[in-house]
Amino acid sequence: MIGFIIITHGDFGRQLVKAVQVILGEQKEVWALSLHENDGLDTLSEKVGKILKEGNEQSEGKIIFVDMFGGTPANASLKFVNDEKVEIISGVNLPMLITGINYRQALPLKELTRLIRQKGEQSILDVKQKFLDKVSKAKNK
Amino acid sequence: MIGFIIITHGDFGRQLVKAVQVILGEQKEVWALSLHENDGLDTLSEKVGKILKEGNEQSEGKIIFVDMFGGTPANASLKFVNDEKVEIISGVNLPMLITGINYRQALPLKELTRLIRQKGEQSILDVKQKFLDKVSKAKNK
Repeated sequence: MIGFIIITHGDFGRQLVKAVQVILGEQKEVWALSLHENDGLDTLSEKVGKILKEGNEQSEGKIIFVDMFGGTPANASLKFVNDEKVEIISGVNLPMLITGINYRQALPLKELTRLIRQKGEQSILDVKQKFLDKVSKAKNK
Repeated sequence: MIGFIIITHGDFGRQLVKAVQVILGEQKEVWALSLHENDGLDTLSEKVGKILKEGNEQSEGKIIFVDMFGGTPANASLKFVNDEKVEIISGVNLPMLITGINYRQALPLKELTRLIRQKGEQSILDVKQKFLDKVSKAKNK
Protein backbone atom coordinates (compact mmCIF):
# COMPACT_ATOMS: atom_id res chain seq x y z
CA MET A 1 0.00 0.00 0.00
CA ILE A 2 1.28 3.47 -0.86
CA GLY A 3 1.64 5.59 2.28
CA PHE A 4 0.69 9.25 2.63
CA ILE A 5 2.44 11.94 4.66
CA ILE A 6 0.63 15.26 4.96
CA ILE A 7 2.70 18.26 6.10
CA THR A 8 1.10 21.62 6.78
CA HIS A 9 1.43 24.92 8.60
CA GLY A 10 -0.37 24.28 11.90
CA ASP A 11 -2.84 21.48 12.42
CA PHE A 12 -5.02 21.58 9.34
CA GLY A 13 -3.34 18.54 7.81
CA ARG A 14 -4.18 16.55 10.91
CA GLN A 15 -7.80 17.72 10.72
CA LEU A 16 -7.89 17.04 6.99
CA VAL A 17 -6.95 13.43 7.69
CA LYS A 18 -9.71 13.27 10.30
CA ALA A 19 -12.20 14.57 7.72
CA VAL A 20 -11.09 11.88 5.26
CA GLN A 21 -11.60 9.25 7.95
CA VAL A 22 -15.07 10.57 8.75
CA ILE A 23 -15.93 10.08 5.07
CA LEU A 24 -14.02 6.88 4.23
CA GLY A 25 -13.40 5.26 7.62
CA GLU A 26 -10.14 4.70 9.51
CA GLN A 27 -7.02 4.54 7.31
CA LYS A 28 -3.62 2.93 7.78
CA GLU A 29 -0.31 4.34 6.51
CA VAL A 30 -1.38 7.97 6.72
CA TRP A 31 0.70 10.40 8.76
CA ALA A 32 0.04 14.09 9.41
CA LEU A 33 2.85 16.42 10.47
CA SER A 34 2.20 19.93 11.72
CA LEU A 35 4.58 22.85 11.59
CA HIS A 36 4.30 24.86 14.76
CA GLU A 37 5.98 28.12 15.63
CA ASN A 38 8.93 26.59 17.44
CA ASP A 39 9.62 23.83 14.92
CA GLY A 40 12.53 24.23 12.61
CA LEU A 41 13.04 22.87 9.13
CA ASP A 42 15.47 20.24 10.41
CA THR A 43 13.12 18.85 13.06
CA LEU A 44 10.33 18.50 10.52
CA SER A 45 12.62 16.99 7.94
CA GLU A 46 13.88 14.46 10.48
CA LYS A 47 10.33 13.41 11.27
CA VAL A 48 9.64 12.86 7.58
CA GLY A 49 12.82 10.83 7.27
CA LYS A 50 11.80 8.57 10.14
CA ILE A 51 8.42 7.85 8.58
CA LEU A 52 9.98 7.15 5.20
CA LYS A 53 12.40 4.69 6.78
CA GLU A 54 9.60 2.70 8.43
CA GLY A 55 9.47 -0.31 6.19
CA ASN A 56 10.41 1.67 3.11
CA GLU A 57 12.16 -1.34 1.61
CA GLN A 58 9.01 -3.39 1.34
CA SER A 59 6.80 -0.38 0.72
CA GLU A 60 5.47 0.55 -2.70
CA GLY A 61 6.38 4.16 -1.98
CA LYS A 62 4.99 7.19 -0.25
CA ILE A 63 3.43 10.44 -1.35
CA ILE A 64 4.20 13.57 0.63
CA PHE A 65 1.40 16.12 0.42
CA VAL A 66 2.32 19.67 1.38
CA ASP A 67 0.10 22.71 1.78
CA MET A 68 1.92 24.94 -0.70
CA PHE A 69 5.06 25.16 -2.82
CA GLY A 70 7.58 27.14 -0.81
CA GLY A 71 7.38 27.46 2.93
CA THR A 72 8.83 25.15 5.55
CA PRO A 73 6.45 22.16 5.11
CA ALA A 74 7.36 21.90 1.41
CA ASN A 75 11.03 22.59 2.04
CA ALA A 76 11.15 19.81 4.64
CA SER A 77 10.16 17.38 1.90
CA LEU A 78 12.80 18.52 -0.60
CA LYS A 79 15.50 16.55 1.19
CA PHE A 80 13.85 13.41 -0.23
CA VAL A 81 13.57 14.61 -3.79
CA ASN A 82 16.03 11.99 -5.06
CA ASP A 83 14.28 9.06 -3.38
CA GLU A 84 12.59 7.07 -6.14
CA LYS A 85 9.98 5.82 -3.75
CA VAL A 86 8.85 9.32 -2.83
CA GLU A 87 6.56 11.69 -4.69
CA ILE A 88 5.66 15.17 -3.47
CA ILE A 89 2.46 17.09 -4.30
CA SER A 90 1.59 20.63 -3.18
CA GLY A 91 -1.79 22.30 -2.63
CA VAL A 92 -3.34 19.42 -0.71
CA ASN A 93 -7.13 19.47 -0.41
CA LEU A 94 -9.84 16.99 0.57
CA PRO A 95 -10.67 15.58 -2.90
CA MET A 96 -6.97 14.83 -3.51
CA LEU A 97 -6.75 12.74 -0.36
CA ILE A 98 -10.02 10.97 -1.11
CA THR A 99 -8.81 10.08 -4.62
CA GLY A 100 -5.49 8.99 -3.18
CA ILE A 101 -7.07 6.69 -0.60
CA ASN A 102 -9.46 5.23 -3.17
CA TYR A 103 -6.74 4.35 -5.70
CA ARG A 104 -3.60 3.72 -3.67
CA GLN A 105 -3.99 -0.03 -3.76
CA ALA A 106 -4.76 -0.10 -7.48
CA LEU A 107 -2.13 2.14 -9.09
CA PRO A 108 1.67 2.37 -9.00
CA LEU A 109 3.24 5.43 -7.38
CA LYS A 110 3.76 7.64 -10.43
CA GLU A 111 0.34 6.99 -11.92
CA LEU A 112 -1.35 7.56 -8.59
CA THR A 113 0.49 10.87 -8.24
CA ARG A 114 -0.66 11.98 -11.67
CA LEU A 115 -4.26 10.99 -10.96
CA ILE A 116 -4.28 12.81 -7.61
CA ARG A 117 -2.98 16.00 -9.22
CA GLN A 118 -5.53 15.77 -12.02
CA LYS A 119 -8.45 15.15 -9.66
CA GLY A 120 -7.19 17.91 -7.40
CA GLU A 121 -7.27 20.43 -10.24
CA GLN A 122 -10.71 19.25 -11.30
CA SER A 123 -12.04 19.57 -7.75
CA ILE A 124 -11.64 23.36 -7.75
CA LEU A 125 -15.02 24.25 -9.19
CA ASP A 126 -17.29 27.23 -9.60
CA VAL A 127 -20.03 25.49 -7.60
CA LYS A 128 -22.70 28.05 -8.50
CA GLN A 129 -22.08 27.68 -12.22
CA LYS A 130 -21.89 23.90 -11.99
CA PHE A 131 -25.13 23.73 -10.03
CA LEU A 132 -26.99 26.09 -12.40
CA ASP A 133 -25.74 24.09 -15.42
CA LYS A 134 -27.10 20.92 -13.83
CA VAL A 135 -30.46 22.53 -13.20
CA SER A 136 -30.74 23.82 -16.74
CA LYS A 137 -29.72 20.43 -18.14
CA ALA A 138 -32.38 18.73 -16.04
CA LYS A 139 -34.97 21.24 -17.30
CA ASN A 140 -34.09 20.61 -20.93
CA LYS A 141 -34.51 16.87 -20.64
CA MET B 1 -13.91 44.02 1.62
CA ILE B 2 -15.07 40.68 0.24
CA GLY B 3 -15.79 38.23 3.06
CA PHE B 4 -14.86 34.54 3.11
CA ILE B 5 -16.81 31.66 4.62
CA ILE B 6 -15.02 28.31 4.77
CA ILE B 7 -17.20 25.22 5.30
CA THR B 8 -15.66 21.79 5.81
CA HIS B 9 -16.20 18.31 7.18
CA GLY B 10 -14.80 18.57 10.71
CA ASP B 11 -12.42 21.28 11.85
CA PHE B 12 -9.91 21.50 9.06
CA GLY B 13 -11.42 24.72 7.68
CA ARG B 14 -10.95 26.33 11.05
CA GLN B 15 -7.32 25.16 11.17
CA LEU B 16 -6.81 26.25 7.57
CA VAL B 17 -7.84 29.77 8.55
CA LYS B 18 -5.40 29.62 11.46
CA ALA B 19 -2.63 28.59 9.07
CA VAL B 20 -3.45 31.55 6.82
CA GLN B 21 -3.28 33.87 9.81
CA VAL B 22 0.08 32.44 10.87
CA ILE B 23 1.36 33.33 7.40
CA LEU B 24 -0.47 36.62 6.70
CA GLY B 25 -1.48 37.85 10.15
CA GLU B 26 -4.94 38.22 11.68
CA GLN B 27 -7.78 38.64 9.16
CA LYS B 28 -11.23 40.23 9.40
CA GLU B 29 -14.35 38.99 7.61
CA VAL B 30 -13.30 35.34 7.54
CA TRP B 31 -15.58 32.70 9.04
CA ALA B 32 -14.98 28.97 9.34
CA LEU B 33 -17.87 26.56 9.80
CA SER B 34 -17.35 22.92 10.74
CA LEU B 35 -19.70 20.05 9.99
CA HIS B 36 -19.78 17.70 12.95
CA GLU B 37 -21.51 14.35 13.24
CA ASN B 38 -24.65 15.70 14.84
CA ASP B 39 -25.08 18.72 12.59
CA GLY B 40 -27.70 18.61 9.91
CA LEU B 41 -27.80 20.36 6.57
CA ASP B 42 -30.39 22.86 7.85
CA THR B 43 -28.37 23.92 10.90
CA LEU B 44 -25.30 24.53 8.76
CA SER B 45 -27.31 26.34 6.11
CA GLU B 46 -28.86 28.59 8.75
CA LYS B 47 -25.42 29.51 10.08
CA VAL B 48 -24.31 30.46 6.57
CA GLY B 49 -27.45 32.54 6.11
CA LYS B 50 -26.76 34.46 9.32
CA ILE B 51 -23.22 35.32 8.26
CA LEU B 52 -24.40 36.41 4.81
CA LYS B 53 -26.99 38.69 6.36
CA GLU B 54 -24.42 40.44 8.55
CA GLY B 55 -24.02 43.69 6.70
CA ASN B 56 -24.60 42.09 3.32
CA GLU B 57 -26.18 45.27 1.98
CA GLN B 58 -23.03 47.31 2.29
CA SER B 59 -20.77 44.35 1.59
CA GLU B 60 -19.04 43.80 -1.74
CA GLY B 61 -20.00 40.16 -1.54
CA LYS B 62 -18.81 36.93 -0.01
CA ILE B 63 -17.11 33.82 -1.27
CA ILE B 64 -18.08 30.49 0.26
CA PHE B 65 -15.25 27.96 0.11
CA VAL B 66 -16.26 24.33 0.54
CA ASP B 67 -14.08 21.25 0.86
CA MET B 68 -15.60 19.30 -2.05
CA PHE B 69 -18.45 19.36 -4.54
CA GLY B 70 -21.18 17.18 -3.09
CA GLY B 71 -21.41 16.45 0.62
CA THR B 72 -23.18 18.46 3.29
CA PRO B 73 -20.79 21.47 3.47
CA ALA B 74 -21.26 22.14 -0.26
CA ASN B 75 -24.97 21.41 -0.16
CA ALA B 76 -25.43 23.88 2.71
CA SER B 77 -24.14 26.60 0.39
CA LEU B 78 -26.45 25.75 -2.52
CA LYS B 79 -29.34 27.54 -0.86
CA PHE B 80 -27.57 30.81 -1.69
CA VAL B 81 -26.88 30.02 -5.32
CA ASN B 82 -29.17 32.78 -6.57
CA ASP B 83 -27.63 35.48 -4.38
CA GLU B 84 -25.65 37.75 -6.70
CA LYS B 85 -23.36 38.73 -3.88
CA VAL B 86 -22.33 35.14 -3.23
CA GLU B 87 -19.81 32.96 -5.07
CA ILE B 88 -19.03 29.35 -4.14
CA ILE B 89 -15.74 27.53 -4.80
CA SER B 90 -15.00 23.89 -3.98
CA GLY B 91 -11.71 22.13 -3.23
CA VAL B 92 -10.41 24.77 -0.82
CA ASN B 93 -6.68 24.68 -0.10
CA LEU B 94 -4.11 27.00 1.47
CA PRO B 95 -2.89 28.77 -1.70
CA MET B 96 -6.50 29.62 -2.66
CA LEU B 97 -7.10 31.35 0.66
CA ILE B 98 -3.77 33.17 0.50
CA THR B 99 -4.57 34.45 -3.00
CA GLY B 100 -8.05 35.41 -1.85
CA ILE B 101 -6.80 37.39 1.13
CA ASN B 102 -4.12 39.11 -0.95
CA TYR B 103 -6.53 40.30 -3.67
CA ARG B 104 -9.90 40.70 -1.99
CA GLN B 105 -9.51 44.44 -1.60
CA ALA B 106 -8.32 44.92 -5.17
CA LEU B 107 -10.72 42.89 -7.32
CA PRO B 108 -14.51 42.70 -7.71
CA LEU B 109 -16.24 39.48 -6.63
CA LYS B 110 -16.37 37.62 -9.95
CA GLU B 111 -12.82 38.41 -10.95
CA LEU B 112 -11.52 37.46 -7.53
CA THR B 113 -13.37 34.14 -7.76
CA ARG B 114 -11.80 33.41 -11.15
CA LEU B 115 -8.33 34.28 -9.91
CA ILE B 116 -8.68 32.12 -6.80
CA ARG B 117 -9.75 29.12 -8.89
CA GLN B 118 -6.90 29.64 -11.33
CA LYS B 119 -4.29 29.99 -8.59
CA GLY B 120 -5.79 27.00 -6.82
CA GLU B 121 -5.37 24.80 -9.89
CA GLN B 122 -1.83 26.07 -10.39
CA SER B 123 -0.92 25.35 -6.77
CA ILE B 124 -1.29 21.58 -7.24
CA LEU B 125 2.24 20.84 -8.36
CA ASP B 126 4.56 17.92 -8.82
CA VAL B 127 7.02 19.41 -6.34
CA LYS B 128 9.80 16.94 -7.18
CA GLN B 129 9.61 17.73 -10.88
CA LYS B 130 9.37 21.45 -10.28
CA PHE B 131 12.35 21.39 -7.96
CA LEU B 132 14.50 19.28 -10.32
CA ASP B 133 13.61 21.62 -13.23
CA LYS B 134 14.75 24.58 -11.15
CA VAL B 135 18.02 22.88 -10.29
CA SER B 136 18.73 21.97 -13.91
CA LYS B 137 17.87 25.52 -15.04
CA ALA B 138 20.27 26.93 -12.46
CA LYS B 139 23.00 24.54 -13.66
CA ASN B 140 22.55 25.58 -17.29
CA LYS B 141 22.96 29.27 -16.53
